[in-house]
Amino acid sequence: MEQQKTSTIGNSSHSVEIGMETEVHRVAPPPRRSTFHKLKARLKETFFSDDPLRQFKGKACKTRFLLAAQYIFPILEWGPKYNLKLLKSDIVSGLTIASLAIPQGISYAKLANLPPIVGLYSSFVPPLIYAVLGSSRDLAVGPVSIASLILGSMLRQEVSPVKDPILFLQLAFSSTFFAGLFQASLGFLRLGFMIDFLSKATLIGFMGGAAIIVSLQQLKSLLGIQWSWQTILMGFCFLSFLLITRYISMRKPNLFWVSAGAPLVSVILSTLLVFAFKAQNHGISIIGTLQQGLNPPSWSMLHFHDSYLGLVLKTGLVTGIISLTEGIAVGRTFAALKNYQVDGNKEMIAIGLMNIVGSSTSCYVTTGAFSRSAVNHNAGCKTAMSNIIMAVTIMVTLLFLMPLFRYTPNVVLGAIIVTAVVGLIDVPAAYQIWKIDKFDFVVMLCAFFGVLFITVQNGLAIAVGISIFKLLLQVTRPKTVLMGNIPGTDIYRDLDHYKEAICVPGFLILSIEAPINFANTTYLKERITRWIDEHESEGRNDAKKPPGLKYVVLDLSAVSSIDTNGVSFFKDLRMVMEKKNLEASYLLVLVNPLGEVIEKLQRADDEKQFARPDCLFLTVGEAVTFLATNIKNQPTLHL
Amino acid sequence: MEQQKTSTIGNSSHSVEIGMETEVHRVAPPPRRSTFHKLKARLKETFFSDDPLRQFKGKACKTRFLLAAQYIFPILEWGPKYNLKLLKSDIVSGLTIASLAIPQGISYAKLANLPPIVGLYSSFVPPLIYAVLGSSRDLAVGPVSIASLILGSMLRQEVSPVKDPILFLQLAFSSTFFAGLFQASLGFLRLGFMIDFLSKATLIGFMGGAAIIVSLQQLKSLLGIQWSWQTILMGFCFLSFLLITRYISMRKPNLFWVSAGAPLVSVILSTLLVFAFKAQNHGISIIGTLQQGLNPPSWSMLHFHDSYLGLVLKTGLVTGIISLTEGIAVGRTFAALKNYQVDGNKEMIAIGLMNIVGSSTSCYVTTGAFSRSAVNHNAGCKTAMSNIIMAVTIMVTLLFLMPLFRYTPNVVLGAIIVTAVVGLIDVPAAYQIWKIDKFDFVVMLCAFFGVLFITVQNGLAIAVGISIFKLLLQVTRPKTVLMGNIPGTDIYRDLDHYKEAICVPGFLILSIEAPINFANTTYLKERITRWIDEHESEGRNDAKKPPGLKYVVLDLSAVSSIDTNGVSFFKDLRMVMEKKNLEASYLLVLVNPLGEVIEKLQRADDEKQFARPDCLFLTVGEAVTFLATNIKNQPTLHL
Repeated sequence: MEQQKTSTIGNSSHSVEIGMETEVHRVAPPPRRSTFHKLKARLKETFFSDDPLRQFKGKACKTRFLLAAQYIFPILEWGPKYNLKLLKSDIVSGLTIASLAIPQGISYAKLANLPPIVGLYSSFVPPLIYAVLGSSRDLAVGPVSIASLILGSMLRQEVSPVKDPILFLQLAFSSTFFAGLFQASLGFLRLGFMIDFLSKATLIGFMGGAAIIVSLQQLKSLLGIQWSWQTILMGFCFLSFLLITRYISMRKPNLFWVSAGAPLVSVILSTLLVFAFKAQNHGISIIGTLQQGLNPPSWSMLHFHDSYLGLVLKTGLVTGIISLTEGIAVGRTFAALKNYQVDGNKEMIAIGLMNIVGSSTSCYVTTGAFSRSAVNHNAGCKTAMSNIIMAVTIMVTLLFLMPLFRYTPNVVLGAIIVTAVVGLIDVPAAYQIWKIDKFDFVVMLCAFFGVLFITVQNGLAIAVGISIFKLLLQVTRPKTVLMGNIPGTDIYRDLDHYKEAICVPGFLILSIEAPINFANTTYLKERITRWIDEHESEGRNDAKKPPGLKYVVLDLSAVSSIDTNGVSFFKDLRMVMEKKNLEASYLLVLVNPLGEVIEKLQRADDEKQFARPDCLFLTVGEAVTFLATNIKNQPTLHL
Repeated sequence: MEQQKTSTIGNSSHSVEIGMETEVHRVAPPPRRSTFHKLKARLKETFFSDDPLRQFKGKACKTRFLLAAQYIFPILEWGPKYNLKLLKSDIVSGLTIASLAIPQGISYAKLANLPPIVGLYSSFVPPLIYAVLGSSRDLAVGPVSIASLILGSMLRQEVSPVKDPILFLQLAFSSTFFAGLFQASLGFLRLGFMIDFLSKATLIGFMGGAAIIVSLQQLKSLLGIQWSWQTILMGFCFLSFLLITRYISMRKPNLFWVSAGAPLVSVILSTLLVFAFKAQNHGISIIGTLQQGLNPPSWSMLHFHDSYLGLVLKTGLVTGIISLTEGIAVGRTFAALKNYQVDGNKEMIAIGLMNIVGSSTSCYVTTGAFSRSAVNHNAGCKTAMSNIIMAVTIMVTLLFLMPLFRYTPNVVLGAIIVTAVVGLIDVPAAYQIWKIDKFDFVVMLCAFFGVLFITVQNGLAIAVGISIFKLLLQVTRPKTVLMGNIPGTDIYRDLDHYKEAICVPGFLILSIEAPINFANTTYLKERITRWIDEHESEGRNDAKKPPGLKYVVLDLSAVSSIDTNGVSFFKDLRMVMEKKNLEASYLLVLVNPLGEVIEKLQRADDEKQFARPDCLFLTVGEAVTFLATNIKNQPTLHL
């Protein structure tokens, strides 16, 4: 029987001759569920849409405990299965990203107006913590350019890193603490969807603007503070070298190691050059002596109760959300490439905890960096062990190799930063956005120019504000579409879209394409009244829209929900149409109201107006057939 | 030919035997339109959805000028046609509302901590201006309880009306000016939809809370400042009298004049009583001497550049939006009853200008009052002339009758206020909201308790914030519904809703019920991936969901728009499914993408993946029929 049922799909066996009795399928309210049940389902879908407890179902207590431990510490999942073959791959990729992390760490710390060594500290502790807690296998953790720029520029608005370096450092660590706290809270409270409000357009505009700010800032170090030709020559040479290697790697992804190794080669080469020619005496500024040893504790430098609390909170919030967005996006990208799952909320907790711990071990804001993760992936990393290898390499550097950086010229660091941020200006993506969605392009421009000409945080806020305004505008002004019949079928579609569709005489068939709620009931009422007026007046001189309106059919297939204003809307609409003296008893016909809609309508429907079989249909086709033929006959209800 | 086409509607003449060639209707992109054309259409629908220039189309220049003048000054429309019969009706209703406006004006001014006479001034100038500019025939203009309460309570937070009455008055006029400016700007910039964000639930909660605050405040004047039994007795008697007359009028709408006349009767009666018994010497406080004469100019009292500018702006904004909401809602309600149109934006300009002019003629915030408009309507008003009659009556009062109010006891004013606001507590509406939508009920409670226990403006802000948060949450977490075939038809509906619907073997048919954009692409991707996983795993032990998934069919009928993130979503989804090693070539099938969606998808679709006829269908039924039968045959495209 079941077999027979499914085999007749699509075979429209219910069609019968017109004029005879027609089968009509009843619209029933959905099965009753208690308010508590509905609330539970709604909350689950909102906060636990990934159903994280699915794997625990029906397991023994001991297994559950093991699964829970693995859930919290993903290292317990891959650790026991770890073998020498995986280790080999991870050592290669770990050393590769370490060679990138050392020069980038030093450079990005300078970008954030922090001592260069803080960049190395930040590449040591956070990767270790992420290796234990993180669920991505490809993420290479450390300081990133955008978060460094934001941190530096927001703090510099109130405190000078030159005049007051200690206070500046304290504020940086405190901001890092709040960034981590904020990130971990988002994950813990399962509010991860907050970062979704940064749309692709916003991010592309923001990144582009930030990249230009950073590049302009670095011009100073590339040109030398006192315009020495040696600095300019060196800067130009190394910048060209780095850009060429970047271009090579972009062209041939197999040669990823060319651009991955270039920064370290540049640092070594330039350091040797300065050392050999004593170039520091010829106007080339150098890093100078760096302190040897591992991260000193910095929890005593966290400030929670002074006059800078507001600044620190704000900086933490903005850097936290931006670095989180980058980290999650990078994790998801590579997870999709290798077909494994990354749990967004868990990642947020991992990144948050790593920043909280980092803030008390002399690290500033870190996350998964896109460029280094790409190198990590290309170098064949298998697990988060590559982060551990990288951290160990950094540890060795911190313990033994710091004197070697003494003669590293600042100009090379500038060249490394510029090369890194050039990749953030994504012109093809901007063009693609222009091609697809003009409004998104405007959002992108707002972010871009806002960051460039106002401030980093305000540019971002404006772009997010406009994006949300667009969402609200869509809800406030939903589309109402006039539908017509596609000849020879019982399909009804948009008359504007499908030119072959034709109007049905006596019917005004409208599709409402949004939830009906307080923000749009007034508009919808006026718009539908206008459709009726236009239909009545234009019909007389337009063959496509015949006069003599008898039925207003509202297709509610796209109305996913209504609220109390929405319920009133239908009552008001019925009243408006009765006042207009159309054939009152058959007037407003509803088609395919979804579960929630029909439920609420019938609950509010004291006069049983919306339960009448002649004004409630399952498809537009059935409604039109039935109303056009069976007006005087009693309907034969199917089901 | 046309005739023949339309007569076959609903007759599913396209169905053919399964296994043979099947007709399939092609999904075409909508007709090409330029970006400018689309932008124009979009802007028109957003800001000129009522198409105000419709009436000017195809008219001669002179007619257009006349129509424009009538458009700006509706009095030119009804004025020339005015006759004695209409005047008679308007005199009756005008006098009726004047009898209500005088005691209410004095009372509401006291509620706003303003001198009683300001309430009468406010019932004189604004109605005259509204009569010229307003398009509602039933609106009775003057001070209202809610706006008076808000104005008084917001200003009192910073300035004492007792210690500094002149400053308080200045701030009240300045707030009125800004309220009017704000209202007129909303109308002029066609941003009238802003007031739609105050949902029914918010307003009911807000009104209820405000009514309770007002009633508690009035207890003081009802009980007498020094607890005199005379005051309490008088207050009790008149409150009972007013409540009883209100009850009578509510029961029998024909007897509307009972409650309409009661306040004036109370004032006259109580004044006579006080005068006869010299009750002012027995602890009953009286209004005292009121200045005779018409509104003095007050433009010199407007303050725009002092330390109270922020307060005045904020108060103007909140009172402006609340009084506008009341005025527009009242106008629309009675327009719907009498079947004429009220132009929201025009009304806003009228109400705004009336407040701007009012602020320089000693009036405070006025709008269309619900209770008085209802009386006006019941008393048979025909045009805005009833407002002029009322204003003239008030003028006579101001010029000659002011000494009569000297002995009016304050306790009667308190009783009038309480009776007026008791009607704002709408328990049946609250119950109805509880019945229909639990979330709206929460919003209502927030507004109610917010107003009661925090402040008027914060309570309102919280309720509006929660309403908007709900809208965003709906966008962030759109429903995805699993669909099945209704046996014997080619209709596909929600499996949870329609229990008779059955799953189609090999197909996962999902309907996405919201626009796809940056706020929900991450969620949708995860949710659909989970649907696929569940479908694959559960299918094995659930007869309703057979295993062997071959096609994921996405019904996009309810996806009214997508943005650039939405376009990426489809590409990502396709990639995710290819990684999952399903039968890659046929995998993702899209059904009925609407105009904008198909346009954007194809514009971004460099590999022509979304233009293939075998993964793009007009209905789910056709998709399933075609895919189930014609896998190896070449499809025969219809159209």
